[in-house]
Amino acid sequence: MTTQAVPREPQQDRSRATRQRLLEAAVDCLASMGWAGTTVAVVAERAGVSRGAAQHHFRTREELVTAAVEYGSEVRMTRMREHLDALAGRRPSALEVVTLLGEMYTSPLFRAALQLWVAASSDDQLRAQVLPLEARVGREAHRLTVEALGADETVPGVRETVQATLDLVRGLGLADLLTDDSARRARLLRQWAATLELALGAAPASTDVPR
Amino acid sequence: MTTQAVPREPQQDRSRATRQRLLEAAVDCLASMGWAGTTVAVVAERAGVSRGAAQHHFRTREELVTAAVEYGSEVRMTRMREHLDALAGRRPSALEVVTLLGEMYTSPLFRAALQLWVAASSDDQLRAQVLPLEARVGREAHRLTVEALGADETVPGVRETVQATLDLVRGLGLADLLTDDSARRARLLRQWAATLELALGAAPASTDVPR
Repeated sequence: MTTQAVPREPQQDRSRATRQRLLEAAVDCLASMGWAGTTVAVVAERAGVSRGAAQHHFRTREELVTAAVEYGSEVRMTRMREHLDALAGRRPSALEVVTLLGEMYTSPLFRAALQLWVAASSDDQLRAQVLPLEARVGREAHRLTVEALGADETVPGVRETVQATLDLVRGLGLADLLTDDSARRARLLRQWAATLELALGAAPASTDVPR
Repeated sequence: MTTQAVPREPQQDRSRATRQRLLEAAVDCLASMGWAGTTVAVVAERAGVSRGAAQHHFRTREELVTAAVEYGSEVRMTRMREHLDALAGRRPSALEVVTLLGEMYTSPLFRAALQLWVAASSDDQLRAQVLPLEARVGREAHRLTVEALGADETVPGVRETVQATLDLVRGLGLADLLTDDSARRARLLRQWAATLELALGAAPASTDVPR
């Protein structure tokens, strides 16, 4: 069996490369053409992969899109982690963190994920498939943001303030969907960063928040 | 001509009532079945209106959906105004205001509007139709929120903080799309209200925000 294992390696690499090309093409396609325009055939063509090869990897649009959003989320998280590592131990300012988040949530990946969420909202089967992915990505984004901000979640209200920051950038992603919202977003995030530094640094603003 | 004018009145009323039934059915339909499932024929059936009568009012799905979101936004704004008027001069607390906003942005109308935005993001003609509506609704929501919070926008940073509140609730609307997010949302908005009261009441947190 060893004689078979040796030539199989490059084929596995090729297969992995094909899969990745399909996932990247699917993110682009979703972001620019929307859910209806994103079929396995269209994505295969965009990726320069035969339809048969594409369907070997992903039988349905739902499978392909969910895998693409998962892949894209991992890329996004890895990039954020690299950004943080590049600071080499220096704590980023709140403005650096929220600017990074603002970029993540206005990227083609956010648009792709939005297409998936919206499609899943009226399709129970797809929703069941998307929910575990959403929960995992949400937890990881929260964890990274807490770490980047150096936020102490044992302080009442801090957890909710970090969550609000992520909900805010999600809302900013929506606001950027139809027009270029970058100038308004920059002003808004500058102010949010200032508010955030006060809220995280100061004593908790509200004492009646249930822990 | 007066003899004709008299019987025309009830017909105009009927026509207006039919139009309104179609718009309400379109909002429900969009929120529950999504863009793809919302055709003039499906909405007509849901509204109990003949397909011909429906097409007399709205020739295309795009026309119907845009009118429905516009109608729904007006209803939503009117409700917020009534809420504020019902307070009879008492200034609502920040928590009351953000709770009201949180309800508005997790309603079927938000889901309907989301379907329209997402469809418009990959359809240039629809986008051109939606943008003026979006701008008008956005300005009105901002104006109502400033009034409700009694926010002084001449103070640097206040305008951005009010905008952030609206982007935050839009993000919360998205977070509620696939799961019931109400418990987390209530905790988060309670904390945001506390932060907001500090931010609006206190001296501006950031002095380098361009006005």
